[in-house]
Amino acid sequence: MSRWEPDAIGRLQKAALELFGERGFEPTTVADIAARAGLTERTYFRYFSDKREVLFAGSAGLQALLADAVAGAPESVAPIDAVATALDAVVGVFEGRIEHARQRQAVISANPSLQERELIKMAALSEAVAEALRGRGVGDPAATLTAEAGISVFKVAFTLWIDPGNQRSFPVVVRDTLAKLKAVTAE
Amino acid sequence: MSRWEPDAIGRLQKAALELFGERGFEPTTVADIAARAGLTERTYFRYFSDKREVLFAGSAGLQALLADAVAGAPESVAPIDAVATALDAVVGVFEGRIEHARQRQAVISANPSLQERELIKMAALSEAVAEALRGRGVGDPAATLTAEAGISVFKVAFTLWIDPGNQRSFPVVVRDTLAKLKAVTAE
Repeated sequence: MSRWEPDAIGRLQKAALELFGERGFEPTTVADIAARAGLTERTYFRYFSDKREVLFAGSAGLQALLADAVAGAPESVAPIDAVATALDAVVGVFEGRIEHARQRQAVISANPSLQERELIKMAALSEAVAEALRGRGVGDPAATLTAEAGISVFKVAFTLWIDPGNQRSFPVVVRDTLAKLKAVTAE
Repeated sequence: MSRWEPDAIGRLQKAALELFGERGFEPTTVADIAARAGLTERTYFRYFSDKREVLFAGSAGLQALLADAVAGAPESVAPIDAVATALDAVVGVFEGRIEHARQRQAVISANPSLQERELIKMAALSEAVAEALRGRGVGDPAATLTAEAGISVFKVAFTLWIDPGNQRSFPVVVRDTLAKLKAVTAE
């Protein structure tokens, strides 16, 4: 077999989601995932440190995108609007991937160890946004509070967006959720 | 030795904090903690499921206090103010315990596995507040957004309160942090 496996990450993610859906997360092994993807276990561990990590492959990219978008927002906008602009920019990544997002969320919701990993990733996302805000000259605690508010909006909007009854696009749900956060904190 | 050990939980917490501070979290064993407290390992495991849990003994109580205070806030107040009232009520618990809080935070900050446990406890706290708000008739996503905002305020205020340079009481820092959150989201 060639050392070069086209789209190995994408194939491993797809295989993992299929198997976690069919058999559950715990009974599935890394060997099963690699076999389903037509790859070796060795290849799996070239990309992911453990069985959980295949579900979080997008996290580092999302974090970098979000931090860059906060840093790149027009100088004149308020911190919360820099975060809003950044969320707008990044949620485009999810377009056309709602089924993938739903399958992934179903697996995570069924497994406490995956929920823990998700919490850690979200905390890292919040800290990256806070750091990007500090880079814009926003002091603390404003930077931390604004970042936490932005990540809360992202998490809540994500849940609303993947709901089977939802008809709205992710960017629309994000904007509406931010407006609701502003309303509840303004009371 | 008598089966009845007065204030076993408090003695184990104190012994654990001392040892984690002196030797670090990883090298300290449950046997060490029990011995320092003048108790047996068996007694330790009667109260705590693992070595980490001794640092989180107050979490369940805090969660119940906060949820009850949200539920008991005057009917007329807005959701965010019900949460503010509840935070005011619970942070009194920390009075006179700033040194304990600092020691505990230093141990947690030095250990990723403890930071994970803390994230999980905070997520549970937020969900308990959201549930208490739903019990007041607050719908979603407002309940979740308000609860997340309240817990963000609690976390940020806690960090500011234990800072060595801080002179203000915890309730004052909480009120000021909430005002800052309202300011950053109002922009």
